[in-house]
Amino acid sequence: MYIAGPLADLIRELEKLPTIGPKTAARLAYYLLSAKREDADALAAAIGSLKDRIRLCSRCFSLTEEDPCSICRDLQRDGSMLCVVGEAKDVYAIERTMSFRGRYHVLGGLISPMEGIGVDKLKVKELIERIKPESISEIIVATNPNAEGESTALYLARLLTPLGVNVTRLAYGLPIGGDLDYADEVTLARALEGRRTM
Amino acid sequence: MYIAGPLADLIRELEKLPTIGPKTAARLAYYLLSAKREDADALAAAIGSLKDRIRLCSRCFSLTEEDPCSICRDLQRDGSMLCVVGEAKDVYAIERTMSFRGRYHVLGGLISPMEGIGVDKLKVKELIERIKPESISEIIVATNPNAEGESTALYLARLLTPLGVNVTRLAYGLPIGGDLDYADEVTLARALEGRRTM
Repeated sequence: MYIAGPLADLIRELEKLPTIGPKTAARLAYYLLSAKREDADALAAAIGSLKDRIRLCSRCFSLTEEDPCSICRDLQRDGSMLCVVGEAKDVYAIERTMSFRGRYHVLGGLISPMEGIGVDKLKVKELIERIKPESISEIIVATNPNAEGESTALYLARLLTPLGVNVTRLAYGLPIGGDLDYADEVTLARALEGRRTM
Repeated sequence: MYIAGPLADLIRELEKLPTIGPKTAARLAYYLLSAKREDADALAAAIGSLKDRIRLCSRCFSLTEEDPCSICRDLQRDGSMLCVVGEAKDVYAIERTMSFRGRYHVLGGLISPMEGIGVDKLKVKELIERIKPESISEIIVATNPNAEGESTALYLARLLTPLGVNVTRLAYGLPIGGDLDYADEVTLARALEGRRTM
């Protein structure tokens, strides 16, 4: 099978990306070939400069161009609420909802004995050190709804509640737009358990 | 909503690509941030250099780095068979099947009165000029199975058959692995029409 070198190069590089299979890679490559030069160049530049321009915020450990990050610098944000997440990308997921106006703290992982990630590898000490100076009254633990996220949340609740902070957890339940029929048993049981008065 | 500038830039550029929505764009961007620097740089370079390195083969009008393209230069290819396609990317689709050993001719579009694409805009003259010198005996018309592809195929058949070439068309029928139930009526009617003795 033959395909022009530069296209084959690009298809091979695109295929390395998650969720991009050979067919999508080919479609994207042909699209980029027919796209405006500015668009292709802008994409290449955005990829090329990404690692150089991004670093971690020294306060909340989310990704930022300037330190501290704009969320930490934003005085409109509610400084008394802190949302604790595992990874920096989780900040983006929550920001997308447009419904949280507090600040964040990125742990840099979740407790996972399987992968050898203990508490010492997470930014827990840094989290505790923020509570007093920032007068934090509520910490929302927004770790993943799985075993690692659960044990991290439990650990944090036990650690932080004695310090006088209200530790809360994201609600479990049925996904909006979902069908009861398709919900797995665990989710459904959690939805029942977490039922609320209407 | 806040997100670090360089990441936002990349997500915005990725979202312009076909089949890439906001969520996939974000996933890809975070992946590229955590990927090895060589991988990100290789992707950026492949995108950036694509347009400079690719041109059209002067003989078959497929995409190539060198002119004529490797398929036109390959003496192992069966020079008596020509597969006519609408776009350069169709060459890639057929090459992927590994079941065609002839050469190609890219029309650069399909006849479409709606979009104002007439025969004069397609590489039809160039196709006719190849028949004699390359002693072509069969032309397989592999245009898309839609109205434009059909009318282009019909036009080519009427034009080329008098020149002593055997003009054939890709078979219509049920997709392999498909379910009779799910096949649309037109495809099913074509499959019936094209039935073959076993």
